[in-house]
Amino acid sequence: MRVITLTTDFGYKDPYVAEMKAVILSINPNVTLVDISHEVKRHDIYHAAYLLLTSCKYFPLGAIHVVVVDPGVGGLRKSIVIRTRRFTFIGPDNGVLFPAAVEDGILEIREIRNPILLRRKVTSTFHGRDIFAPIAAYLSLGIDVKHVGPRLSIGEVRKLYLPKAIVIDDNTICANIIHIDNFGNVITNVKERQFADFLGKASFIEISTKSARFVVPVVKTYSEVEEGSLLALINSEGFLEISVNKGAASEVLNVKRGGKIYIRRKYDSAF
Amino acid sequence: MRVITLTTDFGYKDPYVAEMKAVILSINPNVTLVDISHEVKRHDIYHAAYLLLTSCKYFPLGAIHVVVVDPGVGGLRKSIVIRTRRFTFIGPDNGVLFPAAVEDGILEIREIRNPILLRRKVTSTFHGRDIFAPIAAYLSLGIDVKHVGPRLSIGEVRKLYLPKAIVIDDNTICANIIHIDNFGNVITNVKERQFADFLGKASFIEISTKSARFVVPVVKTYSEVEEGSLLALINSEGFLEISVNKGAASEVLNVKRGGKIYIRRKYDSAF
Amino acid sequence: MRVITLTTDFGYKDPYVAEMKAVILSINPNVTLVDISHEVKRHDIYHAAYLLLTSCKYFPLGAIHVVVVDPGVGGLRKSIVIRTRRFTFIGPDNGVLFPAAVEDGILEIREIRNPILLRRKVTSTFHGRDIFAPIAAYLSLGIDVKHVGPRLSIGEVRKLYLPKAIVIDDNTICANIIHIDNFGNVITNVKERQFADFLGKASFIEISTKSARFVVPVVKTYSEVEEGSLLALINSEGFLEISVNKGAASEVLNVKRGGKIYIRRKYDSAF
Repeated sequence: MRVITLTTDFGYKDPYVAEMKAVILSINPNVTLVDISHEVKRHDIYHAAYLLLTSCKYFPLGAIHVVVVDPGVGGLRKSIVIRTRRFTFIGPDNGVLFPAAVEDGILEIREIRNPILLRRKVTSTFHGRDIFAPIAAYLSLGIDVKHVGPRLSIGEVRKLYLPKAIVIDDNTICANIIHIDNFGNVITNVKERQFADFLGKASFIEISTKSARFVVPVVKTYSEVEEGSLLALINSEGFLEISVNKGAASEVLNVKRGGKIYIRRKYDSAF
Repeated sequence: MRVITLTTDFGYKDPYVAEMKAVILSINPNVTLVDISHEVKRHDIYHAAYLLLTSCKYFPLGAIHVVVVDPGVGGLRKSIVIRTRRFTFIGPDNGVLFPAAVEDGILEIREIRNPILLRRKVTSTFHGRDIFAPIAAYLSLGIDVKHVGPRLSIGEVRKLYLPKAIVIDDNTICANIIHIDNFGNVITNVKERQFADFLGKASFIEISTKSARFVVPVVKTYSEVEEGSLLALINSEGFLEISVNKGAASEVLNVKRGGKIYIRRKYDSAF
Repeated sequence: MRVITLTTDFGYKDPYVAEMKAVILSINPNVTLVDISHEVKRHDIYHAAYLLLTSCKYFPLGAIHVVVVDPGVGGLRKSIVIRTRRFTFIGPDNGVLFPAAVEDGILEIREIRNPILLRRKVTSTFHGRDIFAPIAAYLSLGIDVKHVGPRLSIGEVRKLYLPKAIVIDDNTICANIIHIDNFGNVITNVKERQFADFLGKASFIEISTKSARFVVPVVKTYSEVEEGSLLALINSEGFLEISVNKGAASEVLNVKRGGKIYIRRKYDSAF
């Protein structure tokens, strides 16, 4: 069965997610629906873009990824479909689909325009249900993407770039905190290779936040340090993550998503 | 595949929802399960009735809607099945199914009595798992509803009516806040047609809460006003909604679900 | 379709659950996925073991239960598969699977070792996605468990025992609070038969917490007492539960999961 994933900022209290699923199942009852997350921070397209980028690649070939984080719904922004090497992405043209689509390799972009493939009455406040859900369902049935609407060039869609970690000098990286997960793990935008090149033979890093400094060992797994101690590792998504064994690094470091930290190479644990 | 939806006040921490799904899948492994919401306010049948009413209509013909918001479980209240024009509703006879069933057109009501269609041991505290889940599963297999139990007349079941907005005078509607969603949108019980008739050619409304008054423009979509500004629109469910563009109207208005607001017609934005 | 259940402490904000589902569906697109809960208390294997124990038995024969509450991920703990009379359990060898597996009757235990059945790159921080998910998917396809890895004896795996209620004297049971549910129901580890033997012809119990005593009636269902009043009953899982009709017993008793209460038999409601 074809997989359709959903990523929204709708939360789990309201019936909005269920309405999207209802519309999809009314068109294609033989689809497998998977929730990526419905707890994207309200209107935060960077948060949604990160969740999509990190998780979409694990899905089966042909999966259709629908994202509805859409503060501009009903306004001038376009509705788009992006076909990539392995997947199809559907959502508002506000950049939220862009990082994941670029990473997978964009083949074709279409603006959603064909009213025959939408709900009969399209409201101006819930395109997730009235536009994106039916388009996802019809594409999952095998309808050719050309029927969705006219082709757009890459220059015609909104770009969104997740911030990149910057090497400030030979010994310092300025990293952004791109996610804090349910465990309080602090996930930075420093990628595996960049970090390996930077670290060299050092086995510690010094982390400077706005208000404090910490020297932490670079390890492979949480349990290599004592319970309650800080550590740094390359996480399962390939990003540098600051953690506490059985604890919450976000609380120890006192940092938030979107914040910056400075990372320096250290050869021992001394300050 | 046949769709069974679930609406409960069980939350996502406990295994209760999973136990219902387990029972259903043990009887009919080929069913599609969709969660409408499991975060209905504890024991709040009005909240559940609203969620069901607004979302059930988007599901495919033949969908079976199970609701377990059931403070009287194990007591004297009946367990019922309501067959409507397009759907089947299953739950306690406390009124929670009533608004959605009436809206779709009631064809037949049955009291659940046939022990052969229930779990062997029916506990007095979890009818969701022991009664409603197996009944839903058997009906999804195509078993005739007459096997469920004796027919009830409409006079024999509990009614529940969602409050209606009242036109107080030519210029004032008294509305109830029937839902506050995840975005802080304040959803009233004023319906699209009632509001259009009331508004006439006016393009603003004055909203009076217990403690303050606000004059807000009536628009089609959130982004027609500046970020942080109040607006009123007919939402995707056909109800008058008070919102803030990229903000939470419930906080700005300082109102709660169940509260009342007074709405007056205004021809300009002046107080 | 074969059922795979998931129980984790990942929460609903992060993409981790979706990544596990993605990996499973990439291997077996025809599986039915059911979430037991993803809100297990962080790293709390007792909590997870309780949720699994109480809910797994309702699932269809052959269901595969995956648990990822895994504070020792990447360390020395083994990854295991336990085949029982009706089910297959997959997870870390930290005891979390043990109570449910023992209850169902252990037939065979295997250590997960065969790299062919894992994701190509196994990270040291997310075995749920890289080890347990693919193993579950392959087993759901009918691959024999012997291909997973070498057999382990029961003596080689970690045991975890949920605490048992202790009869202190003829008139007193010391019970542990093993769960507090979404309704504030206080669920103890006193089992149905043990309680029936203890209670005899009494119809009340006295409950002593650290700071207070309560005398409550033993009833069959919540609505037998007035709204807001305490009661005791054998709940739908067969455990003694202290509840408040339409209220939260955990707040009235002022107790937490993991705490102890003393229960005494009473023949009337007087203190």
